[in-house]
Amino acid sequence: MLEELKQQVLEANLALPKHNLVTFTWGNVSGYDKDANLVVIKPSGVPYEKLTTDDLVVVDLEGNVVEGNKKSSSDTPTHLVLYQNFSGIGGVVHTHSPWATSWAQAGKAIPALGTTQGDYFYGNIPCTRRMTEEEINGAYELETGNVIVETFKQLDPAAVPSVLVHSHAPFNWGKDPNEAVHNAVVVEEVAKMALHTYQINPNTPEMQQTLLDKHYLRKHGKNAYYGQ
Amino acid sequence: MLEELKQQVLEANLALPKHNLVTFTWGNVSGYDKDANLVVIKPSGVPYEKLTTDDLVVVDLEGNVVEGNKKSSSDTPTHLVLYQNFSGIGGVVHTHSPWATSWAQAGKAIPALGTTQGDYFYGNIPCTRRMTEEEINGAYELETGNVIVETFKQLDPAAVPSVLVHSHAPFNWGKDPNEAVHNAVVVEEVAKMALHTYQINPNTPEMQQTLLDKHYLRKHGKNAYYGQ
Amino acid sequence: MLEELKQQVLEANLALPKHNLVTFTWGNVSGYDKDANLVVIKPSGVPYEKLTTDDLVVVDLEGNVVEGNKKSSSDTPTHLVLYQNFSGIGGVVHTHSPWATSWAQAGKAIPALGTTQGDYFYGNIPCTRRMTEEEINGAYELETGNVIVETFKQLDPAAVPSVLVHSHAPFNWGKDPNEAVHNAVVVEEVAKMALHTYQINPNTPEMQQTLLDKHYLRKHGKNAYYGQ
Amino acid sequence: MLEELKQQVLEANLALPKHNLVTFTWGNVSGYDKDANLVVIKPSGVPYEKLTTDDLVVVDLEGNVVEGNKKSSSDTPTHLVLYQNFSGIGGVVHTHSPWATSWAQAGKAIPALGTTQGDYFYGNIPCTRRMTEEEINGAYELETGNVIVETFKQLDPAAVPSVLVHSHAPFNWGKDPNEAVHNAVVVEEVAKMALHTYQINPNTPEMQQTLLDKHYLRKHGKNAYYGQ
Repeated sequence: MLEELKQQVLEANLALPKHNLVTFTWGNVSGYDKDANLVVIKPSGVPYEKLTTDDLVVVDLEGNVVEGNKKSSSDTPTHLVLYQNFSGIGGVVHTHSPWATSWAQAGKAIPALGTTQGDYFYGNIPCTRRMTEEEINGAYELETGNVIVETFKQLDPAAVPSVLVHSHAPFNWGKDPNEAVHNAVVVEEVAKMALHTYQINPNTPEMQQTLLDKHYLRKHGKNAYYGQ
Repeated sequence: MLEELKQQVLEANLALPKHNLVTFTWGNVSGYDKDANLVVIKPSGVPYEKLTTDDLVVVDLEGNVVEGNKKSSSDTPTHLVLYQNFSGIGGVVHTHSPWATSWAQAGKAIPALGTTQGDYFYGNIPCTRRMTEEEINGAYELETGNVIVETFKQLDPAAVPSVLVHSHAPFNWGKDPNEAVHNAVVVEEVAKMALHTYQINPNTPEMQQTLLDKHYLRKHGKNAYYGQ
Repeated sequence: MLEELKQQVLEANLALPKHNLVTFTWGNVSGYDKDANLVVIKPSGVPYEKLTTDDLVVVDLEGNVVEGNKKSSSDTPTHLVLYQNFSGIGGVVHTHSPWATSWAQAGKAIPALGTTQGDYFYGNIPCTRRMTEEEINGAYELETGNVIVETFKQLDPAAVPSVLVHSHAPFNWGKDPNEAVHNAVVVEEVAKMALHTYQINPNTPEMQQTLLDKHYLRKHGKNAYYGQ
Repeated sequence: MLEELKQQVLEANLALPKHNLVTFTWGNVSGYDKDANLVVIKPSGVPYEKLTTDDLVVVDLEGNVVEGNKKSSSDTPTHLVLYQNFSGIGGVVHTHSPWATSWAQAGKAIPALGTTQGDYFYGNIPCTRRMTEEEINGAYELETGNVIVETFKQLDPAAVPSVLVHSHAPFNWGKDPNEAVHNAVVVEEVAKMALHTYQINPNTPEMQQTLLDKHYLRKHGKNAYYGQ
């Protein structure tokens, strides 16, 4: 079942080491099929070099295993909360990519300092608040999803398709697994450049709103004119 | 038409990922044929690994498409302004290479701190002013070219063949597409070293003018003695 | 003798350059066979690309050579002290991996700032005190082991399987050579991220104890639920 | 003539891009044959990927070309001053490797902060003074050699086989071209780590003299015990 989505999820998982986004098994990609209302996700702790579509796990949005012999990623509940709350997304990617993770550890949003970020993110990439003791000791991975959703109360997840989880690492999403990986790459790149920008000029302000509008909207929405 | 230039432009575009100057499609190279008064440029949003000479677009200096089925790079008007104003250049390269882009985001010129820069650039690599709301909301890509030209009012573009566009990224040029790529590589390298130099010694002054003269002029101009 | 362990030790040594943990011969891995009470270790100063199992040296815990024509690593006495004092370990790895070594040179523990570290280390990765003149001029490599053991007087080496030796570099261990290499990779990664985290936010506190408990204990101990 | 040395010089030149020490043609290696009293050196501005032994130039210590159709490296006079003044060296390497060059641009010696440096350099790696206008406008490349020699008036070039030329880049040497490349790699590595060490702890003192003695002397001199 869901063979095409499984192939996409496999390729998206294999794209993580190719883009230098993961060390060992520190990342996972899932994909969502809207019609079947099911999620295909990486199994827990399986090395990328050995991963095949047969290893992937199919779960419903409540986390019940529908197909697969392996345990799904321990982060599965986080992925499911995102699919439940962010309408229109079809892929979720979690990595510990080092530059973005450094911002997450610092507890700071990645500020929009230039057009590289503006081409993909309509503003800053937020960082969640610290989780409470209750959340951490409770259904931790599900609560991780909840704190992400809380962070986007005033934000459009389609316009800002990534988040930093405080003291942890980034989660990214997109209309499909491939786009979610794409966004994960962008986050890593802008995270690196934002730190260096501040090191060159600690007083760098955020980019002009007009410039952000221009770049974001020339690639997104009904007036986009970038690409073929 | 322009088969030789197309081949050069293709190779120069493919050199960008090889030199780690681009992520995804974040860059483009064009070449200019003086006799035909035409420009060959990368199409918009086409991945480098799939690019062939057939994808390249031929435009005149006003941006009219002379040959090609694809939309040319969205940055085409910027390239054209440079060819119109910087006499003698035959190639233009735009990248979001991360170290140079960090300087662009910080709004700072890359200072000439050593002979690596002096071998290629006769002084600092300037950063444009921020663009106005009118420029951004108007013919944005053309105005990007204009603000570059404005930055070089007192500077010789042949002696300083790169610029940082504020809050954006570098543009580079040269007598042909290959030399423009070469300069793009140098900018990235000196951008990285300039930040580290300041981190080692925040009070590093610019290099001595005599040393800059020596290095630039042993590789450029009538008394050059570097190379075969 | 000990052919299986030799193969493991060879592979673990070859994994060091693959993970970019060593330049030239700046690192070594050993493995310990509990039943035979013997250690297999890399010979001194032999390039990784030429290393075969025949080059490996077998020593007892007092450092007497039991098999092998080559001199064992000059760091052998350090390895032996660790096997003698840290019960349950079966592999030791020494590298000069650059980010971890920078922390060692700075004489600072790598603080636990996020879940990447918490997944493998139950707290900070300590740095030893400076060694005394007597220790350095005496049985230096053995005293290096002693100062590591001293550092773990109040710490469980199973829960914190790495240390920074002051002004020197990291030593790492694990239940077998492969796990020790794994920990060496993690140390390098968290060392890099900890510096960048402080550069983003110099006031970053250590991660919440609850979060550290959660991450460490979901991968270790009787209630672990990560992996297959 | 000098076929064996030519082969060594070729391989040492090709080792520079392999160790990520050079961009384009920003580096050169020479070798010295004591019996013939001749130097084999890279030609000026020839890309590494096209270099063959036939391109190498043989010069005497006054710089007269003894064999070769190409112009020798523009840095040839610097190499020759080193061979004339530093007895016992048989190879010289110049690169613009980025971390070491950043220290050169900052005008600062690379401090001995740990055993990685102590294993190869018996102390700090010095930076020359700025050259005078007269030196720069005179026989510049020869004067570059002279200012290096001046820097070593109180230092043993055999014990500290590298130098940073102010506002320029490192020169390295060794008993043969291969050892000189080896030292060039070490300089780059310790340059990177020294900056990061200071970023972690700006007050890091130089390493203890006893530890420096121990590490340098266990690899060099009559009491060395490292290696086979």
